[in-house]
Amino acid sequence: MNFSSKLIEEAVNEFSKLPGVGKRTALRFVLHLMKQNKTDVEQFSGAFLKLRSELRHCEKCHNVSDKVLCEVCSNSNRDHSTICVVEDIRDFMAIENTQQYRGVYHVLGGIISPMDGVGPGDLNIETLVQKVASSEVKEIIMALSTTMEGDTTNFYIYKRLKEYNLTISTIARGISIGDELEYADEITLGRSIINRTLYENSLQIK
Amino acid sequence: MNFSSKLIEEAVNEFSKLPGVGKRTALRFVLHLMKQNKTDVEQFSGAFLKLRSELRHCEKCHNVSDKVLCEVCSNSNRDHSTICVVEDIRDFMAIENTQQYRGVYHVLGGIISPMDGVGPGDLNIETLVQKVASSEVKEIIMALSTTMEGDTTNFYIYKRLKEYNLTISTIARGISIGDELEYADEITLGRSIINRTLYENSLQIK
Repeated sequence: MNFSSKLIEEAVNEFSKLPGVGKRTALRFVLHLMKQNKTDVEQFSGAFLKLRSELRHCEKCHNVSDKVLCEVCSNSNRDHSTICVVEDIRDFMAIENTQQYRGVYHVLGGIISPMDGVGPGDLNIETLVQKVASSEVKEIIMALSTTMEGDTTNFYIYKRLKEYNLTISTIARGISIGDELEYADEITLGRSIINRTLYENSLQIK
Repeated sequence: MNFSSKLIEEAVNEFSKLPGVGKRTALRFVLHLMKQNKTDVEQFSGAFLKLRSELRHCEKCHNVSDKVLCEVCSNSNRDHSTICVVEDIRDFMAIENTQQYRGVYHVLGGIISPMDGVGPGDLNIETLVQKVASSEVKEIIMALSTTMEGDTTNFYIYKRLKEYNLTISTIARGISIGDELEYADEITLGRSIINRTLYENSLQIK
């Protein structure tokens, strides 16, 4: 593409480094920015610089945070004896948005994936074991993806924690609410029959 | 959404101001940036600041340019007596990419659109008339969109320029090359029959 300007070309190149953004979309973004006034563009650029330089990680759960402790870890109303293990901030946000969980979190920062060269040492697993060893943790809820990598990570953490006196659980797998049975995949359907729950229990959840 | 960090929230808000970017896509961009090293993020932000502060418009054709005159206007190999009138830099780029045009351009900076409050006075039309009056222009090619706004703008410019001794043409409308006739819309098909061209002429274009 002939952008008629090195400045535009540079800006387009920077935008097209973002995931899922091609040159055409990048150019659309650039033309949009060109129409904004200078303060708006300064605010736009500034937000990312500030994010990169000021953002830190919660000392307790490793989630991204503006302060030493994140909002959840510094909240005394949360149940600090229940820890939900998640891969990254996206899963943290997904669970927080359900408003069904009152415990705290532990963010691994990834999952074990030999294909991508990610081993247990690259993740925040050691600090989880230390947390379990040194404080009163009653339950660890594993909330990782149902992929091979997720299962491997689940199993590794299970092996590291099983000597301690606590409950290790995983989030329930089954047919999504609102889904038609005939379209569910066989493995999910099979597991959901094996792991059937008492009908009475389902009545208690509003 | 609970972003657990004001910094992330701000960055997400800035990204979601871009056209076609929602909160989810914005978060994906932000998580991508968070993984980059500091220099990369500085380069990313810097490109937009630089674009906004250093970009100017060509004094002759009003196209965006890094210098006083754009690459096309400062090129003595281009035919300066043929001017192609386009709406904005996107149309300029589209025509340049065909590599079929050797003249120069005049960028209007928009089209007449009473609905959006854009009148002739908001566009670079006066400078086009001055250019025609003061220099040797042989042909003006109108290359605007085939919308009502485009047609209005074409007609307005035509009225302003018809007193001068020059050819005013518009780019050819017709069936796209490679298109099946049965799927062409009626208006385009009808016009392409009325404006039929000699078969001999089509043989000359490789």
